[in-house]
Amino acid sequence: MNKKVYLDNAATTYVATEVLNEMMPCFNVFFGNPNSIHAFGREAQGLVDRARDRIAKAIGAKSNEVYFTSGGTEADNWAIKGIAHAYINKGRHIITSQIEHPAVLGACKALEKEGFEVTYLPVDKHGLVDLAELIHQIRSDTTLVSIMAVNNEVGTIQNIKAIGKICKENDVIFHTDAVQAFGALKLNVIDMEIDAMSISSHKIYGPKGVGALYLRNGIRIENLIDGGHQERNKRGGTTNVPSVVGFGKAAEVTVRDLAVYNQKMKSLREYFVKQVTEKIPYVIVNGHPHQKVNNIVNISFELIEGESILLLLDFEGIAVSTGSACTSGSLEPSHVLKAMGVEDETSQGSIRFSFGRSTTKADIDYTVEKLVEVVDRLRKMSPQTKSAKKGDK
Amino acid sequence: MNKKVYLDNAATTYVATEVLNEMMPCFNVFFGNPNSIHAFGREAQGLVDRARDRIAKAIGAKSNEVYFTSGGTEADNWAIKGIAHAYINKGRHIITSQIEHPAVLGACKALEKEGFEVTYLPVDKHGLVDLAELIHQIRSDTTLVSIMAVNNEVGTIQNIKAIGKICKENDVIFHTDAVQAFGALKLNVIDMEIDAMSISSHKIYGPKGVGALYLRNGIRIENLIDGGHQERNKRGGTTNVPSVVGFGKAAEVTVRDLAVYNQKMKSLREYFVKQVTEKIPYVIVNGHPHQKVNNIVNISFELIEGESILLLLDFEGIAVSTGSACTSGSLEPSHVLKAMGVEDETSQGSIRFSFGRSTTKADIDYTVEKLVEVVDRLRKMSPQTKSAKKGDK
Repeated sequence: MNKKVYLDNAATTYVATEVLNEMMPCFNVFFGNPNSIHAFGREAQGLVDRARDRIAKAIGAKSNEVYFTSGGTEADNWAIKGIAHAYINKGRHIITSQIEHPAVLGACKALEKEGFEVTYLPVDKHGLVDLAELIHQIRSDTTLVSIMAVNNEVGTIQNIKAIGKICKENDVIFHTDAVQAFGALKLNVIDMEIDAMSISSHKIYGPKGVGALYLRNGIRIENLIDGGHQERNKRGGTTNVPSVVGFGKAAEVTVRDLAVYNQKMKSLREYFVKQVTEKIPYVIVNGHPHQKVNNIVNISFELIEGESILLLLDFEGIAVSTGSACTSGSLEPSHVLKAMGVEDETSQGSIRFSFGRSTTKADIDYTVEKLVEVVDRLRKMSPQTKSAKKGDK
Repeated sequence: MNKKVYLDNAATTYVATEVLNEMMPCFNVFFGNPNSIHAFGREAQGLVDRARDRIAKAIGAKSNEVYFTSGGTEADNWAIKGIAHAYINKGRHIITSQIEHPAVLGACKALEKEGFEVTYLPVDKHGLVDLAELIHQIRSDTTLVSIMAVNNEVGTIQNIKAIGKICKENDVIFHTDAVQAFGALKLNVIDMEIDAMSISSHKIYGPKGVGALYLRNGIRIENLIDGGHQERNKRGGTTNVPSVVGFGKAAEVTVRDLAVYNQKMKSLREYFVKQVTEKIPYVIVNGHPHQKVNNIVNISFELIEGESILLLLDFEGIAVSTGSACTSGSLEPSHVLKAMGVEDETSQGSIRFSFGRSTTKADIDYTVEKLVEVVDRLRKMSPQTKSAKKGDK
């Protein structure tokens, strides 16, 4: 059997053993519906309460500001659509950026269809939103600014604290998609003046199918999913107890181990980037040179297709992703790299490598070795290489 | 330690061992994101495909008509809001019933706020919708009829096939909330002429946090949760692989064992009802006398409060629920029993007993024994009993 190297931790992580251990009894021992008032229900409710406390603590919020959802995408949809609708009397203008996750962009597009106006802020070549431009775009009818904390494709970290301050000064609600940030950065919703924040479990070694929306007390929101009295009447549906419990534990562990984790990721990243840039010509490392998370490296391999690199690495047991989050066969270049001014041709040769807790130096060595071979092989076949070489002469 | 008897299987069930066994490897072995095109992703996608096939087979649908959601509540919200919005050019009138689940009623109330008109059909004393009245209410601007297959409080089974026929003849889309029906009845979306159907996993010994919307090919729907390309571009968010896999297995097992299960439930129900009605005076069994599911029994104990019965039974280790799905301390009488013409005073003395796979005859005996004591004790304390007795003289 081939060696297996998983370098797609930004897409999803496995569930950590200590997380799974806490989830297990919830499937068939503490299996009650937390909405029930008998002992089975109260037991389950107690577990959900503890999980909510853990999430709150991990982000510096109060427990009653944490609402469980089915994931980051639901949290983004709920925050953007729900806040936009709740403040419609103030106005119908929303500001976001061009490099947001499809969940945020999709929610904004849906609002545009309803007659809302959305401003998509540009970013610089490192993927940073220009704060002066943000201030410039805020109007009297602007209700919401939604800007992601960490970009999922290139890892650039926005100046969230400064954005929070700008929003507060201008009396605009600030939502941030922190799905990639949670687990990579220390987040504190008070310090950062965040009004609403989406986080997800399956990026931090918790189970899939659960996330949360932090919503500062006092911020109004309309329901996305109506139903029973769950989540303080704001989100119907039987609480997903095992997943919520797993998410709570995952958040606790993540914050506990953050410093050690980041040290390890930084050393892996530096080692990897050094190897790749030394051994492979015509590569560009995308994203901010310093202001970026340690676990994501996005590299453009010029003259070849990212999809082909991905497939050949996959054949060697190495899992990576193309820059684009779109993986359904579309060959459209990444909207993130495009916004950063990367040429389409370069963009299409981009690969995201995302490291995780179980990544080793040996994994990196193996990946670099195969990458050198794969890139070399593809470049030899590439018509682009031939014309580029001719151009060199 | 007290004996523990769980008679709240209509609220939620434990996860069956054979279901959990299939889920387990998805947490940390086949943990990939099905949206990824590398081997980890393809493995996960294969498991999701198999689960979708199993769900489709269980309800007589095609696999590409099954969309996974975070549960029955999301499926109801999506179906009702999404179809109503997609057919807005035809009209803004929707028909539902007065006895629907809060997820359906909540979605309808949200649409009313947007300017839609909703007709809430009455039911007879057994909880059945009058088909003539349904026909009478359909108008040229009616786009959607949403009527539940089985009521969650009293277990009454609607004439779904007849309703499907009426909707088809009148060119109106038919959605049914089949959350309580799935696992209790054989469902076939073709035979029953159903256009959209919500089902949930955690009522059929699958995990919480996952459900599905069946949507007949050709029926249009607007997205509730926008994002990536998941679920044929109709529902964003990373697929919850372990839960989807568990749901698929649970559906397969449920259909496989349905006849044996129903025989057991019927015998438990008949035994229970006989004991209770013989040993306790002033009781009324709610719901349809015959056209009802076998696992739900709703009984009104006159002159006393259901909440008090629930708490005293809980003290004896027996978990039941009040007729009302509302368990957050509200003392409002059940909207279902109210629609069936049950007086508020009687309604407030109602308890739902819902049996499950692990319920035994010994559990029933223990429950009846404690119920006799509890009802007797409460009636002796009740001021209503005293005035009723005076009235008797």
